[in-house]
Amino acid sequence: MIEATAGKTADHGPLAIICGGGSLPFAVADAVGRRGRRVVLFAIRGWAEPKRVAHYPHHWASVGQFGRFCRLARREGCRDVVFIGSMVRPAIRQIRPDFKTLRLLPRIFGIFRGGDDHLLTGVAAIFEEHGFQLLGAHAVAPEILMPEGALGRERPTAHDLADIAKGLALLNASSPFDVGQAVVVADARVLAIEAAEGTDRMLTRIAELRQSGCISAAAGRGVLVKAAKRDQDRRVDLPSIGPQTVEGAARAGLAGIAVVAGSTIVAEPERIGTIADRAGLFVLGVREQATER
Amino acid sequence: MIEATAGKTADHGPLAIICGGGSLPFAVADAVGRRGRRVVLFAIRGWAEPKRVAHYPHHWASVGQFGRFCRLARREGCRDVVFIGSMVRPAIRQIRPDFKTLRLLPRIFGIFRGGDDHLLTGVAAIFEEHGFQLLGAHAVAPEILMPEGALGRERPTAHDLADIAKGLALLNASSPFDVGQAVVVADARVLAIEAAEGTDRMLTRIAELRQSGCISAAAGRGVLVKAAKRDQDRRVDLPSIGPQTVEGAARAGLAGIAVVAGSTIVAEPERIGTIADRAGLFVLGVREQATER
Repeated sequence: MIEATAGKTADHGPLAIICGGGSLPFAVADAVGRRGRRVVLFAIRGWAEPKRVAHYPHHWASVGQFGRFCRLARREGCRDVVFIGSMVRPAIRQIRPDFKTLRLLPRIFGIFRGGDDHLLTGVAAIFEEHGFQLLGAHAVAPEILMPEGALGRERPTAHDLADIAKGLALLNASSPFDVGQAVVVADARVLAIEAAEGTDRMLTRIAELRQSGCISAAAGRGVLVKAAKRDQDRRVDLPSIGPQTVEGAARAGLAGIAVVAGSTIVAEPERIGTIADRAGLFVLGVREQATER
Repeated sequence: MIEATAGKTADHGPLAIICGGGSLPFAVADAVGRRGRRVVLFAIRGWAEPKRVAHYPHHWASVGQFGRFCRLARREGCRDVVFIGSMVRPAIRQIRPDFKTLRLLPRIFGIFRGGDDHLLTGVAAIFEEHGFQLLGAHAVAPEILMPEGALGRERPTAHDLADIAKGLALLNASSPFDVGQAVVVADARVLAIEAAEGTDRMLTRIAELRQSGCISAAAGRGVLVKAAKRDQDRRVDLPSIGPQTVEGAARAGLAGIAVVAGSTIVAEPERIGTIADRAGLFVLGVREQATER
């Protein structure tokens, strides 16, 4: 059914992809291109990688240039918009509001006062009022979603599965507070909960704590568990993993990574499998039901 | 009633204080001394501060020298034991088990497999089986507990109070997972949740995230909220704040600190008030009821 929807959107003209950092935007662009739909990248200055952007039809814009986006996207005939890629909250000096954005500022500041969910849902509403349809990357390219099962050769032990269950339950409990899509659990002990720092920094912290002897779990124990927040607007903020997530988990001395199948975006799954095999880590897609408790 | 209990324990001979790092052990020793009870410090090598230990009757011991502790404490006539001070989990190379500890090792390893609560309760049981009574520092020196109200001049705004309420609710929700005694909330957004890294490192993280522009809340916004875990064994692990907590919160650009009155230990409250006033931060003791929801 997702496939049918993905096919149908091809009638809606080219797809505008607003690109943050990392390799995910290009994985989505390639997947949509393979389906025969034209893509136009709107690369965000300071986040999107210029060398890779250059391979696609594209425009550059700064954070805050919503007027510019509307004008260019309409000229390109785009109605559907996907927003994808990493983007830590921009510093004030990086924001270059154009006239339309300035008029929207009071509302945007109101949106910023809430948590992430609130922010993203508010932004989606603004796009829709301007005649665009904001879609999740998974709606236009379902093949980028994590499947059930493992990506590489390694499999979790019963011990790892217990850590995964504890991690999913904790993410479920903290979800109403609009915080944390990731935790690290080792030997039934919660070592880290992600908030504003993001997954990569959290994994770096685990590596440092291990080096300074603050973590009693042996190397090769512990799991990074990621899950979408409950009621998260999946069009704009599905959790994702990429090769750098596996590398970070390896440096943190973990046994593996568990994410929720069907609601996690995976950039470059083959490369992830290869890296995971080399590092001896498992990368597992678990069923959604496991998170309901 | 707490006073009466504290008075009664004076009949039980000198108090053994097992000292970790920081200034809390000495605040407790002084408070107990003022009540006319003799104290004997058992300073843990690598954590307790030698210069300050020297001012009290004391013995040194390494982590794992439980047999040595039992022998010396009995010789000193101590039956009541207080364990206090910071102690990140020791690295293996810092542990010097003596014969008695070696015999207890299988059990200790079993204890280590759980979370913090499990660990501390297990350790308390071992002390009691050897004829000692493990007491909370607040039972022997109730004056070290945080009072209701503010320590310095500054007071929270209505905005800060909303952040505090959100922080307490999140700590309450994550408590069953035996994790986190502290969070940072700014403008209703959860910026950090503490796990294995401890409060000081979490505050350093906030300072770094702010510098790198990852936090949109303005400087001077945000509250560090600390609370005891539900069902926490209060004899061994009440949350605490000290001068370095206020300094860390100031460096992190927060508006203040909120802790639960009556179940948080405060080292050097006067100095905390002075430092908080200088930095323009509030340090607030809130009612326990606020955490029940």
